Amino acid sequence: MSFQFEILHLDALSSARCARFSTPHGTVETPAFMPVGTQATVKGISPQQVEQVGAKMILANTYHLALRPGSEIISSLGGLHRFMGWNGPILTDSGGFQIFSLESERTITDRSVVFRSHIDGSVFDLSPERAITIQEELGADVMMCLDHCPAADLPAVEQADAVRRTVIWAQRCARAKRRTDQALFTIVQGGLHKQLRSDCAEALVDMDFSGYALGGLSVGETPEQMYEIVEFTTPLLPQNKPRYLMGVGRPQDIVEAVDRGMDLFDCVMPTRNGRNAMAFTSSGNLRLRNRCHRDDDRPLDSQCNCMTCRTFSRAYLRHLFQAGEMLGPILLSIHNLAFYQQLMRNIRSAIGQGLWREWCRQWKKDYLGLE
Amino acid sequence: MSFQFEILHLDALSSARCARFSTPHGTVETPAFMPVGTQATVKGISPQQVEQVGAKMILANTYHLALRPGSEIISSLGGLHRFMGWNGPILTDSGGFQIFSLESERTITDRSVVFRSHIDGSVFDLSPERAITIQEELGADVMMCLDHCPAADLPAVEQADAVRRTVIWAQRCARAKRRTDQALFTIVQGGLHKQLRSDCAEALVDMDFSGYALGGLSVGETPEQMYEIVEFTTPLLPQNKPRYLMGVGRPQDIVEAVDRGMDLFDCVMPTRNGRNAMAFTSSGNLRLRNRCHRDDDRPLDSQCNCMTCRTFSRAYLRHLFQAGEMLGPILLSIHNLAFYQQLMRNIRSAIGQGLWREWCRQWKKDYLGLE
Repeated sequence: MSFQFEILHLDALSSARCARFSTPHGTVETPAFMPVGTQATVKGISPQQVEQVGAKMILANTYHLALRPGSEIISSLGGLHRFMGWNGPILTDSGGFQIFSLESERTITDRSVVFRSHIDGSVFDLSPERAITIQEELGADVMMCLDHCPAADLPAVEQADAVRRTVIWAQRCARAKRRTDQALFTIVQGGLHKQLRSDCAEALVDMDFSGYALGGLSVGETPEQMYEIVEFTTPLLPQNKPRYLMGVGRPQDIVEAVDRGMDLFDCVMPTRNGRNAMAFTSSGNLRLRNRCHRDDDRPLDSQCNCMTCRTFSRAYLRHLFQAGEMLGPILLSIHNLAFYQQLMRNIRSAIGQGLWREWCRQWKKDYLGLE
Repeated sequence: MSFQFEILHLDALSSARCARFSTPHGTVETPAFMPVGTQATVKGISPQQVEQVGAKMILANTYHLALRPGSEIISSLGGLHRFMGWNGPILTDSGGFQIFSLESERTITDRSVVFRSHIDGSVFDLSPERAITIQEELGADVMMCLDHCPAADLPAVEQADAVRRTVIWAQRCARAKRRTDQALFTIVQGGLHKQLRSDCAEALVDMDFSGYALGGLSVGETPEQMYEIVEFTTPLLPQNKPRYLMGVGRPQDIVEAVDRGMDLFDCVMPTRNGRNAMAFTSSGNLRLRNRCHRDDDRPLDSQCNCMTCRTFSRAYLRHLFQAGEMLGPILLSIHNLAFYQQLMRNIRSAIGQGLWREWCRQWKKDYLGLE
């Protein structure tokens, strides 16, 4: 059996859990954070460096790769793993998120979503079946069903329509799937409406997917609203399947979601913020452009063992950003990804040792400065 | 003795030679190519990656680092090696090249050259003595005398004035030098005028520097004019000291200059061209944006063992450039630097085996397509 999800520890006082997710390209200890490689590259970082920061599984994007270079090209070159030189597990997002993020460039019907390409204006018609065909050409370990991801603030009637469409599309995706060496995850929508989340989860659980994602979060709602929906929805999902909170998020969001039972995460934040001179550290975030760092010989984070922290001072990193040198974004992306991976290791270790809630309390104190 | 220059092989049919140049931070086999790290970073590449491509010695720039972050800051952080995380030999150019490249932003007198900072318009007064002070604060293994580098097409009277000033400044640099753990190289100017080159070389050789550079080349003259000046000037320089051809150049320029007795080279070409999607290969150059590469599964160069060629296809590299992804410039810079280092290894090996002229003939055939 290519895919297994084996629960190793269940926390006694929360919904937090540790598990081992096996895929054809390797095993992922969860809770896990997946670096984002939308266009078949984690921005600015070689696959070797992605491995060195400790990441096991990464993300790529169906919509973007279908438009450029095209999934048939990637397929003819041996699939996405070979194309991008990453031999670990990969998950491909389906394009559902682009229904939200490229709202002005698409028309949605029950049949499909028709995009005007953000590259050259050409028409790209993405049906649930096409999303599966493309993802089978890409050959990632985990495919996502095409879903309808709406903005968080849409009225209930539109959220309900997105749920209805997401459920129909999930069924069509499951039927379209041919390859047996790829897992298919589905996505629970429903915005901030508990009844819709519940309806959506119930319908999708009946179809028995290999994994369940929460979508439509981190799209404009407050963190507290997000935590509430996660807390409400997680118990509706199968205990013995991976749960994936899409597009989340800040370190504190991940900690809160793990506490509520989520296993997998992805977010552009470590790389995007890194490119913008913001470093995550165990004692809070640093803005490297600030003048206070100009002659600071310390590493970004004395608790971090990444290549950036082993080699360079804050003063040098600031210099790179001030001088507009590419190495600044590269080194901060590496550090931030390493920070996220270290965070996940600490989370797994705390759960495994039965110290989860105590660890959380100390972590918030250190990272957020909360007592 | 910190610095040694030991000649290992002299070619019988040309002026080509192999030598071992020892510095406080390690030994460099020559002929050698030094990657350029103007602002204390080889653009887009970590020091570890610079090492992995096989480079032993790199370049940094006095003018740029004095303006930003400031040599006193670098000094207070333990010097340039520690600042930039490079433990091998470093050579700092003096700022003389900026007299040429920033011509509209400077005023030159015998006392000094006064720049208007290209960053903030502030005044930066660089005398020969100040160039040495700054370079001693930076702490590179090899310092360069401040010279007056004029454009190649200036009339003889102005070239003569630049030579006169370069000689006076070399003397002042030698007098200003305090540290004994840094070598000081001087620079022969004189444009395309053999008499001026000869006068300049003679005066500088009398002063007994640790190494001799040829400056004022690769500044607008033809390759043939450059080769002629190299061929004319090399015999005027001491046999037992390193000879450095500044800012050169294309692979074929390096081969021609080695043939005429040069030992050290630097150029931005491998990294700059790499950022612009141009790859050097053993069978000629590739433009990765060309459509012909879109589904080409081959590595850039089947004879290259760099990380880029071991891991990625031309199709993937093209995709990165088409998608505007940072990893494209990074991977091509790595490859191009590796190509240059492999070229230098091949050159040294051919000289060492007494096969230099035969190797040259075959190399030109393969690389330039010349019979």
